[in-house]
Amino acid sequence: MHNTKLIISYDGTDFYGWQRQKEFRTVQQELEEVLLKLSGGTVIRCHASGRTDTGVHAEGQVVHFHSELKLKPDKLQLALNSLLPDDIAILSVEEVPDAFDASRSAKRKMYRYVIFDHRVPDVFVRRYAWHYPQHRLDEKLMQQGAEALLGTHDFRCFETEWPNRKTSVRTITHLEVRRVDRFLWIDVEANGFLYNMVRSITGTLMNVGRGYWPASQVKEILEAGQRTMAGPTAPPQGLFLMRVTY
Amino acid sequence: MHNTKLIISYDGTDFYGWQRQKEFRTVQQELEEVLLKLSGGTVIRCHASGRTDTGVHAEGQVVHFHSELKLKPDKLQLALNSLLPDDIAILSVEEVPDAFDASRSAKRKMYRYVIFDHRVPDVFVRRYAWHYPQHRLDEKLMQQGAEALLGTHDFRCFETEWPNRKTSVRTITHLEVRRVDRFLWIDVEANGFLYNMVRSITGTLMNVGRGYWPASQVKEILEAGQRTMAGPTAPPQGLFLMRVTY
Repeated sequence: MHNTKLIISYDGTDFYGWQRQKEFRTVQQELEEVLLKLSGGTVIRCHASGRTDTGVHAEGQVVHFHSELKLKPDKLQLALNSLLPDDIAILSVEEVPDAFDASRSAKRKMYRYVIFDHRVPDVFVRRYAWHYPQHRLDEKLMQQGAEALLGTHDFRCFETEWPNRKTSVRTITHLEVRRVDRFLWIDVEANGFLYNMVRSITGTLMNVGRGYWPASQVKEILEAGQRTMAGPTAPPQGLFLMRVTY
Repeated sequence: MHNTKLIISYDGTDFYGWQRQKEFRTVQQELEEVLLKLSGGTVIRCHASGRTDTGVHAEGQVVHFHSELKLKPDKLQLALNSLLPDDIAILSVEEVPDAFDASRSAKRKMYRYVIFDHRVPDVFVRRYAWHYPQHRLDEKLMQQGAEALLGTHDFRCFETEWPNRKTSVRTITHLEVRRVDRFLWIDVEANGFLYNMVRSITGTLMNVGRGYWPASQVKEILEAGQRTMAGPTAPPQGLFLMRVTY
């Protein structure tokens, strides 16, 4: 028995998220079906660093599984990429110590939210960005607002369906709003994320960027701890799980 | 009655090309259906600069139509973009003289073929590039080979189903192979294109870039005028109609 770590990428558009569900197409199900073939019929259960929701993408999701597979990492990567559907790609395969757990061993995760704020739609980015044609957003004000969120706080104001966890305290180690090419990127790195946290931070910063709220309101929302005071949950197609750090 | 010129973009993945067909989804059909609504039931026929095939994209296809529509260009653009499916976008709308014809008035067209030659697949580009993982292509050799094609020649060696036209003589005014970001772009501008011409030029240059043929063979193929001597027809998802010049 050995433990294998995968870094995988997927286009979330046509998946009902990561986690296996009876009636719907998910990344976990596709991956486990291919591993079942490679193992000659032995069920291999995959564990991700965390779930991603319907429509959310991954550039660097991490997965581990225990198996008796005999394939070397290079060969396993080629086999998986040739058998998987083309909206999932295996970026790397590595043998890791038994104790490695994609979820519990994770120290930090980084998400990117991509906004496209041009007036005219772009058909080639519609699956991979939130198109917001109404206003040109002010990324400097958004960054100003974002700075209130850096560090360790109770982020319950950005959690859908709170309270569903023991604690909603998390530490954001990096939060940056910037323009890259024709896009606005919101990068958020933290030691953990609450449900819909990046998408509700994005909806909140959006309200700042379009001039609806002053930048200082982000701090007030955080301190009030009320989900209803924060902005809307941004749609899934702009969100990417970029990397997990161990 | 007035004449309207549109510059439109579409993601060709889910279309059976530009031209209206009874049983299949096409760009012309989607556009004409929306114009039918806007006109209150009067059929408006659209004419493109040329057909694009199943799966081929457009960054700047040009279309004209004659109509009695009263909407100003700005309003018409907004109306079309809000009613069209999200894989078609109207980039500009302009009133033009009656004599303007998207096809007959065209002086030159520019196509881009996009190749992605990394070993590991990228799920976010699979719809918009030809993934060629086997070799890293040599773009300098490809450019050397390409230079034989510049100027006025009989391009029948790159035409599928020749002879289906009066003449297969065309003039290529620009042909450039270069790396941009992680991609290899083949830009071809000409006064007109034969059926599958860019895709068979791409297949031919690919055979040079992967070291299967010397660069000088492109000239020999052109001079021999035999389709069977040229390379394969590259797949449609890498091809973009970039712009039409009038």
